[in-house]
Amino acid sequence: MRGFSRAMALLAGVAFVVPALADEGMWTFDNFPAAKMRAKYGWAPDAAWLKHAQLSSIRLAQGCSASLVSPDGLVMTNHHCARECLSELSDAKHDYIANGFYAATAADEKKCPALEANQLVDITDVTAQVEAATAGKSDRAFHEAERTAKAAIESKCGTGADVRCQVVTLYEGGVYDLYKYKRYQDIRAVFAPEQSIAFFGGDPDNFTFPRYDLDTAFVRVFDHDKPLHSDTFLKFATKGVRDGDIAFTSGNPGATERDDTLAELAFQRDDAQPLLITLFSELRGVLNEFATKGPEEDRTSTTMRFLIENTLKAYKGRQSALVQGSLVTDKAQAETAFRKRVAADPKLSAAYGGAWDAVAAAVAHNRDIYIRNGLLERLSQRLSPLLGQVVALNRYAAEAGKPDGQRLEEYSDANFPALKQELVSPAPIYSELEKTTLAWWLTKVREYLGTSDPDVRALMGKKSPGEIADALVDGTRLKDAKFRAQLLAGGPKAIDAYHDSLIDFARKLDVPARAVRADYENNVKAVITKNAALIAKARFALEGKSSYPDATFTLRLSYGTVAGYQENGRTIAPVTNFAGAYAHATGRDPFKLPATWLRAEKDVAMDTNLDFVSTNDIIGGNSGSPVIGRDGEAIGLIFDGNIQSLGGDFGYDGSVNRAVAVDVTAITEALRKIYHADRLAGELAR
Amino acid sequence: MRGFSRAMALLAGVAFVVPALADEGMWTFDNFPAAKMRAKYGWAPDAAWLKHAQLSSIRLAQGCSASLVSPDGLVMTNHHCARECLSELSDAKHDYIANGFYAATAADEKKCPALEANQLVDITDVTAQVEAATAGKSDRAFHEAERTAKAAIESKCGTGADVRCQVVTLYEGGVYDLYKYKRYQDIRAVFAPEQSIAFFGGDPDNFTFPRYDLDTAFVRVFDHDKPLHSDTFLKFATKGVRDGDIAFTSGNPGATERDDTLAELAFQRDDAQPLLITLFSELRGVLNEFATKGPEEDRTSTTMRFLIENTLKAYKGRQSALVQGSLVTDKAQAETAFRKRVAADPKLSAAYGGAWDAVAAAVAHNRDIYIRNGLLERLSQRLSPLLGQVVALNRYAAEAGKPDGQRLEEYSDANFPALKQELVSPAPIYSELEKTTLAWWLTKVREYLGTSDPDVRALMGKKSPGEIADALVDGTRLKDAKFRAQLLAGGPKAIDAYHDSLIDFARKLDVPARAVRADYENNVKAVITKNAALIAKARFALEGKSSYPDATFTLRLSYGTVAGYQENGRTIAPVTNFAGAYAHATGRDPFKLPATWLRAEKDVAMDTNLDFVSTNDIIGGNSGSPVIGRDGEAIGLIFDGNIQSLGGDFGYDGSVNRAVAVDVTAITEALRKIYHADRLAGELAR
Repeated sequence: MRGFSRAMALLAGVAFVVPALADEGMWTFDNFPAAKMRAKYGWAPDAAWLKHAQLSSIRLAQGCSASLVSPDGLVMTNHHCARECLSELSDAKHDYIANGFYAATAADEKKCPALEANQLVDITDVTAQVEAATAGKSDRAFHEAERTAKAAIESKCGTGADVRCQVVTLYEGGVYDLYKYKRYQDIRAVFAPEQSIAFFGGDPDNFTFPRYDLDTAFVRVFDHDKPLHSDTFLKFATKGVRDGDIAFTSGNPGATERDDTLAELAFQRDDAQPLLITLFSELRGVLNEFATKGPEEDRTSTTMRFLIENTLKAYKGRQSALVQGSLVTDKAQAETAFRKRVAADPKLSAAYGGAWDAVAAAVAHNRDIYIRNGLLERLSQRLSPLLGQVVALNRYAAEAGKPDGQRLEEYSDANFPALKQELVSPAPIYSELEKTTLAWWLTKVREYLGTSDPDVRALMGKKSPGEIADALVDGTRLKDAKFRAQLLAGGPKAIDAYHDSLIDFARKLDVPARAVRADYENNVKAVITKNAALIAKARFALEGKSSYPDATFTLRLSYGTVAGYQENGRTIAPVTNFAGAYAHATGRDPFKLPATWLRAEKDVAMDTNLDFVSTNDIIGGNSGSPVIGRDGEAIGLIFDGNIQSLGGDFGYDGSVNRAVAVDVTAITEALRKIYHADRLAGELAR
Repeated sequence: MRGFSRAMALLAGVAFVVPALADEGMWTFDNFPAAKMRAKYGWAPDAAWLKHAQLSSIRLAQGCSASLVSPDGLVMTNHHCARECLSELSDAKHDYIANGFYAATAADEKKCPALEANQLVDITDVTAQVEAATAGKSDRAFHEAERTAKAAIESKCGTGADVRCQVVTLYEGGVYDLYKYKRYQDIRAVFAPEQSIAFFGGDPDNFTFPRYDLDTAFVRVFDHDKPLHSDTFLKFATKGVRDGDIAFTSGNPGATERDDTLAELAFQRDDAQPLLITLFSELRGVLNEFATKGPEEDRTSTTMRFLIENTLKAYKGRQSALVQGSLVTDKAQAETAFRKRVAADPKLSAAYGGAWDAVAAAVAHNRDIYIRNGLLERLSQRLSPLLGQVVALNRYAAEAGKPDGQRLEEYSDANFPALKQELVSPAPIYSELEKTTLAWWLTKVREYLGTSDPDVRALMGKKSPGEIADALVDGTRLKDAKFRAQLLAGGPKAIDAYHDSLIDFARKLDVPARAVRADYENNVKAVITKNAALIAKARFALEGKSSYPDATFTLRLSYGTVAGYQENGRTIAPVTNFAGAYAHATGRDPFKLPATWLRAEKDVAMDTNLDFVSTNDIIGGNSGSPVIGRDGEAIGLIFDGNIQSLGGDFGYDGSVNRAVAVDVTAITEALRKIYHADRLAGELAR
């Protein structure tokens, strides 16, 4: 599944631009290669088409894509993108994940505790302003100057509940663009099918094709407590796709590393990826066994298990591409050849020739601090939502009083509203799950940093991980969202004056976590950003801006066609239908059709398209992207890529790399014949 | 910990001989490099010394080393080598793992359900006989001829309850030696301390130094129901070791791959090790969470969790050596240089020049079948002891009627007595643990082989892994050891006539499991054996037999000295004492001293040696090896290696590679002052 979690963003990297081939490319809307597409397909979209697609596209700030599909703020995305919301709205009596959700009337639509929708309205090049601020600076000074310049630009553009402005670093720092979004935080659940059909085939079928999934959900954007009115939206196509149809995806690919240097790829292959696969495999085992303890443990851990399984499979696919494929040797050859061209020009050589070695030195430093940074700063807050909230609360007290540009990035005026929404989210805290993941995390801290590490001793004293985790969760009032909101509203003084087991622990953790984060930001990230930008400029100098930048969880357009592929000597047909879903059902998880589907078997038109694959170049974060046809209608809904697409982080292979989507006609058929969701189906037909 | 499990042996490999450096070398007793040792140390053992060490050494067939330490069959080994026995003797009322075990009188000594002790009495070169049988053969024909020749030699040498004869393949097939052992199957527990001191520091301290562990156990060999009388045994030293003391280890290193070709090393690095680390990490998570379900789940899973954690740490160390160290590039250079020397000689080139490419082709085939072989044949039987027993029972029915040389190797006359002992072992079967590991294994089978694989469909049908596992364990009478023994005694007809859920499942599994095993044995193992032998012969031709063969879980002697080392800029002193153990105790697992130690704190001489490190070249399987001083006394008991030794599978680095041992004076001090085990201490002082 193509969601984009922060855990995956841990691996985002850096450095040079590859010429686009075939249908390759995650293009920014201000640099779409219309001439190239026209040369291949005899047609390309015009400016009006592009504007319509852009304004119909929605980013879900928590890591997915989506689209407006009615004039009344109706938004289509994946079930797995609305899953956290559904889980948070559920309780021991209502399991909206297992049983689905449908608001039969407008009044039944339920507010998602922590969803934020962004609509991209404007792009402005601000490269000159940022470069003026960072000129001549290195390391920490470079990092701080860049942060301050970005914050100033964002602040001037606008900030608050209705607008989100972000300076986006593109082409590894070769370009800085200001992206201005409308921000919406009142998002309400409208419809979701049962998990068993949204994720039919489960983990075994994840990242494969053929598929038979209705990975679909609808939510509605509210603006000042009323459904958002929008003249721009994607109409639903009434005919299913066919082999060879032109297909666009408009969405927010999370992160790719196609421009990374060889040193960065080797670090991923030899260090980062193996560590993450090891850690997530163990956690997968812990959580799957936790789920066998009882129905409540099963229910409360479903979302996290889903996230872990999905992330792990993606990591394995990436690693396989790095180890088994030709990516690393291809990169080595391309980098050697390009460095020779730079070295041959004295002017380019003087300006850019040292950049690769500087990146390699930063990578070597990252190797030394990677585990500490991962365990103390990055993973800690993701593994325990509760700890994440309390760390954020405590940090807010320290960051709020600083100038915007000097704060940790997520506390900037542009970013804090989204974090604040998570911080005060009324989503339930599952104490037993929290204790389990916290205890496991502490065990890993002790294992990897060592029992004699001073930070480990300070954090853990003589207690066992299990004792500490129990005391942290049982001894805090911060499980209560209202209490967190009250402290936050009280400001830094109120927060600083409050003590309990968990916030005091967060304060203790903050010391080594901030230290290693600063080390990373100043001595790894800043060095790589600066030098990768030099490499990008060398590329611009020799080849112009003929390519697309690495993915940055910002809006991109990809073009391609509906097309099958070859696998193990077999031809995989590009489209499945309802008959296939019924044929593949076994009655057992994860191949069990829901009762609604079994009851409706006689009513459904079996030859209706269900899922399809296309050559679109997508990556995690594209989940929920609309697939748009030549005439600007929604023809599909991206929810996955095939196994072969997982190497897409590092390169695109048009012969087998495929995006996987639900056909919109399947959605219409299911809403009418299976779910009898006439209010929703009617709205989609307008 | 330096035990040697079959799971670790999965990785055993093949191919060329490296010149010995420093104290490197796991020498066979018939080729000890006395001249080399004398050149370095001014002294070397004579033939009488060697014979005494050899006959005092004991191999525990399940994967450890040990030694005779009294004239009455008393055997010293590690706590972790006796752990399975202690676990099997325990029940809900007696936890000999947690609380230790001591037979205060001879009558209190308890029979271990499944321990076999072997004493090596004779070595004979049989290379010519095996080579005569395999001459001119390849692949399957080579494999069968080799098996038949070995079985015939073993059978002629002797077989049965009292003797074990094994033809050992040394120098990757360059040499075949017949090893003749006395076999003992009546082994009784005498003494073991509490787990908390045997494994003080637990997983966090495993494979590190300094250490404070009393990883010691004593068992007694019985012969025809009486303690074995032996004139040859190691007397306990009465003085603790000192920095620089000469130290030998005599034990059974399990498997090394120092002579592997580059293709085999790359396969380990890129395929085998990453897969095993991923699988074992997930299983570790499952079992650690299983243990939190209750005290009974904790107790019953302790031994398996220990095995998994230990194995996983070893895999990680090996992989780190392959990825971060210079082993692979060193091997590439050495192999290229040696192949050039072979190519330069037309006669050698014609005879041996094609061997490396033949090995590489076999490795490529292994890459295709490795996961299937691992899941269906190798791991299945190790993850579930019950399934392992039932597979063995079912296979015995098929193999018993075949000629010795045509049977699967573990059913040969030489090997079956050890397997039979496991098969009928009265050790308790833990149903909930069995269900958990079986369900997990089935999930992995489905995940890795795929839901549409015909073997997966045949094994699993439409049921879920959990349902299948429950039905297998609940629906079988074969949990009862007496019933297994009865069926076995009834022979093939009785076994074939018996049906229940589990044995019928084992029959279904047998079809694909045998198929992939045969593919591996004929098309991977036989090809590598044959060609690695050619490489070894090229080595003999150019360099003579100046080195030692890769480890094969047969008796080897290593020489070296007690010596510290440098780590992260610090000097690690070579010896710890009792004072250090008390200083490092926190009162919490895994740094909690047992009550006996806390009570005796005033009585113990705090400056008594506890653990020490030496330069001896050891590997998994050496656990329990005696450390022998210059005068032939036991001075220590190997129980581990440091982290730096884990790359020892692929090469030895004398500057940091260290063996970790308990000083025998610590054992004496603890027996007298802490455990008041006077009967045992008195026997050791004779």
